[in-house]
Amino acid sequence: MVPMPTRRTTVRRVPHRGVYDREVVHAILDAGKVAHVGFVHDAQPFVIPIAYARDGDRILLHGSGGSRMMRALAAGAPACVTVTIVDGLVLARSVFHHSMNYRSVVALGTATKLDGKEKAAALETLVDALVPGRSAEARGPNPAEMAATMILAFPLEEASAKVRSGPPVDDPEDVPLPIWAGTIPLALQCGQPQAAPDVPDDAPLPPSVAGLIRRSPAP
Amino acid sequence: MVPMPTRRTTVRRVPHRGVYDREVVHAILDAGKVAHVGFVHDAQPFVIPIAYARDGDRILLHGSGGSRMMRALAAGAPACVTVTIVDGLVLARSVFHHSMNYRSVVALGTATKLDGKEKAAALETLVDALVPGRSAEARGPNPAEMAATMILAFPLEEASAKVRSGPPVDDPEDVPLPIWAGTIPLALQCGQPQAAPDVPDDAPLPPSVAGLIRRSPAP
Repeated sequence: MVPMPTRRTTVRRVPHRGVYDREVVHAILDAGKVAHVGFVHDAQPFVIPIAYARDGDRILLHGSGGSRMMRALAAGAPACVTVTIVDGLVLARSVFHHSMNYRSVVALGTATKLDGKEKAAALETLVDALVPGRSAEARGPNPAEMAATMILAFPLEEASAKVRSGPPVDDPEDVPLPIWAGTIPLALQCGQPQAAPDVPDDAPLPPSVAGLIRRSPAP
Repeated sequence: MVPMPTRRTTVRRVPHRGVYDREVVHAILDAGKVAHVGFVHDAQPFVIPIAYARDGDRILLHGSGGSRMMRALAAGAPACVTVTIVDGLVLARSVFHHSMNYRSVVALGTATKLDGKEKAAALETLVDALVPGRSAEARGPNPAEMAATMILAFPLEEASAKVRSGPPVDDPEDVPLPIWAGTIPLALQCGQPQAAPDVPDDAPLPPSVAGLIRRSPAP
């Protein structure tokens, strides 16, 4: 299913930055680490950060079954899931045209609680989104842990992306000014893995972690 | 004014991660780049990423005066401003205890539109939050640019922080398992500044940019 722009997800501010292509939406979601989930409780919007994974045309969210947000979403509360990746600072000659380079996805919808085999598979997908290949290395969930975990699937039916990239765009009359303009790339980068204090000194890095470090993008 | 936990901002999930200290809230806001702002339109929550700055006990947000979100916030819509910084991936022996290290602030409230001198000062604060010292280097806003920009102040009266740091916490019976556990630090890092195509080749980096690169944290 292709994420389609609806009246509610059509980008209105700077419309040429709006992107409705499924592959672009998927690529942004695959590159992000944290989703910001919006829901309403007593007429007050709340925005809570949460780890997530993309699984085909849906976003998987997991949390405690006791969480107010998870319970509200499972009960069918209208929600918004937003993922933003900051790619750089954009410095123009004029204060007015300063900006950021970024990629973001905004998805509207209602989540569905997963159970049984679908839930177990989703948990593996979530761990592998954190570190690819990790679910096969770690000790799998026991029944009590599965019961304490809630996993929700959020559809990518009503979603749009917004992307800004490239250099600053100054007004033509500002270009001759003796003011530097350009971009400062930003990227979330991995540092050196730190073994937990109770891991033996000679324990090798697992393949999942070694692979993640190898693929860590330079800004 | 100290951000105080109210019934609405008391951290309920993993309550020992909740922090209500003003300096912690301020430090997280000062370290972040993007806020996720939640508001409600036709019973649907929306979460939109936006650049921001902290100014004392308030968050400054700026956008186009034509933006649906800015207009809704200026009209007094209840809002939530959330800032999240990802500090690392946490790999436990068990799938269940995998997590992320992060710092986040959730603030609830209602924004106020700024005008006149207060608005002009806020615009400088916003540009300097992007790159400290930049507002003094760039060409300042003219009246038409000021008129096209809306700046909102969001109070830090009802706010809380949530922080996870440190190594994974495994169940005691999992510690002897031959599974690596630890953390992978993550940090948003600056790359090499890229001058805009129309900047002369011999233009030096301005002090603001040189300073930002020098202070860029290693993960």
